[in-house]
Amino acid sequence: MSLVGAGPGDPELWTVRAARLVREADLVLYDALVDSVALRGLTEAPCFHVGKRAGRISVKQETIHKLMIRAARHGKHVVRLKGGDPFVFGRGAEEAMALAEAGIPFEVVPGVTTAVAAAELVGIPVTHRGVASGFVVLAGHTSEALDDALGALVPNRLTVVVMMAVAGRAAVAERLMAHGWRADTPAAIVCGASTADAWSWMGRLSEFERVEIPDDVAGVLIVGDVVTVRAALHGDARTNEGTADGTDRQGAEAREAMYGRN
Amino acid sequence: MSLVGAGPGDPELWTVRAARLVREADLVLYDALVDSVALRGLTEAPCFHVGKRAGRISVKQETIHKLMIRAARHGKHVVRLKGGDPFVFGRGAEEAMALAEAGIPFEVVPGVTTAVAAAELVGIPVTHRGVASGFVVLAGHTSEALDDALGALVPNRLTVVVMMAVAGRAAVAERLMAHGWRADTPAAIVCGASTADAWSWMGRLSEFERVEIPDDVAGVLIVGDVVTVRAALHGDARTNEGTADGTDRQGAEAREAMYGRN
Repeated sequence: MSLVGAGPGDPELWTVRAARLVREADLVLYDALVDSVALRGLTEAPCFHVGKRAGRISVKQETIHKLMIRAARHGKHVVRLKGGDPFVFGRGAEEAMALAEAGIPFEVVPGVTTAVAAAELVGIPVTHRGVASGFVVLAGHTSEALDDALGALVPNRLTVVVMMAVAGRAAVAERLMAHGWRADTPAAIVCGASTADAWSWMGRLSEFERVEIPDDVAGVLIVGDVVTVRAALHGDARTNEGTADGTDRQGAEAREAMYGRN
Repeated sequence: MSLVGAGPGDPELWTVRAARLVREADLVLYDALVDSVALRGLTEAPCFHVGKRAGRISVKQETIHKLMIRAARHGKHVVRLKGGDPFVFGRGAEEAMALAEAGIPFEVVPGVTTAVAAAELVGIPVTHRGVASGFVVLAGHTSEALDDALGALVPNRLTVVVMMAVAGRAAVAERLMAHGWRADTPAAIVCGASTADAWSWMGRLSEFERVEIPDDVAGVLIVGDVVTVRAALHGDARTNEGTADGTDRQGAEAREAMYGRN
């Protein structure tokens, strides 16, 4: 039984080990952000989508636990393939706990976390000398968890990455400003990082609410001065100007640009 | 020109893309924590070690920039292979900036960050419902950067991961406690995560100074209640007891155990 991180989306950002485990699997249970075409190209084992997307629950967490435990008890090698890293939110630790309680031996295989990669793939380093001496990763899907985490921070010091919060971006901006963050703090939204549907926006914290994004799109919010470093890396005049047209839609043909100036 | 993350150490935790880029490279410049045997097994291109280790500088940062820029201008595909993720400390953003200033096209390829993976590989999730609503990643190699980052945090709320701080662990504990962290906060040290030299220790924050580790060993410090989650995942009675023998030395034969209870 393997709990495996699949990275932000692009199957080339799976680890070598993730790809090998999928090839050797008897059963794969995968999340919404995992590339199912790449997955089925690597294995003939049954692959079931058990993921959630933007709050819509497709399979209950307890059902996922039961599926894993039952198949593992039947001697099958189960790969639970999760977007990003298994232990960065996404309830991976709960799944590990359920396996441990059931006495199922398991391994955890780290993946490229979207918390860092989403920013990186549009040219934003989460840390940079003289700009941010560290970064914080929070989840924004419930206001309780968000308020709890923001209450632990002094405003406008470290880079803040908020996951599972694109749909709730207006509320996140409101809570950050209520906790003391400047309205003009540089901010970015990155959706579908490393995929053909990659899309990003750069502007100011107070502008989150007027960015138009469909509600079911997954992505991360990045808040802090490091967002301005992108301009130095890309020489992109539109960046951080906070214009109404600050968006940067990238189609499949521009996919390579996600990785920099290639 | 590719700035590529190599993950925490095990070449199986390289991304598929990292492995492909190394195979296609004309020149590889790699860091101390990159597995040089695996590297040379994948490519016949010249591979130069340009890394630092525990503060000892082997090649100046400016020299690395010059080597990358010169080779790229000669039309060579240069792979700059960095431990962990290129944009989580480690001066990756500075290298990207130097390339951008020189007008060299480049891509950044995310890697598995040691900030998350080191904890994960010994069974500690950096976030867990009801225990930590987020995590913070800091660098502990200079006291100025550390104090700056700690001054941005309310003590004992979020999980704190301190990188580049194993040699300075006593000072880090002292600074955390000076900033208000409880002396009995659960804490862990993980060195050489995912490698044959993997070693970990679990105990309390105030005990960092009496843990004996050679000064040139690289690793991360993890401070927060999530360290206690490991016991639930591993059923390991030694964990978090803070005993004098809280160490958990793992030799090559126990390498698989790094990934859980396999």
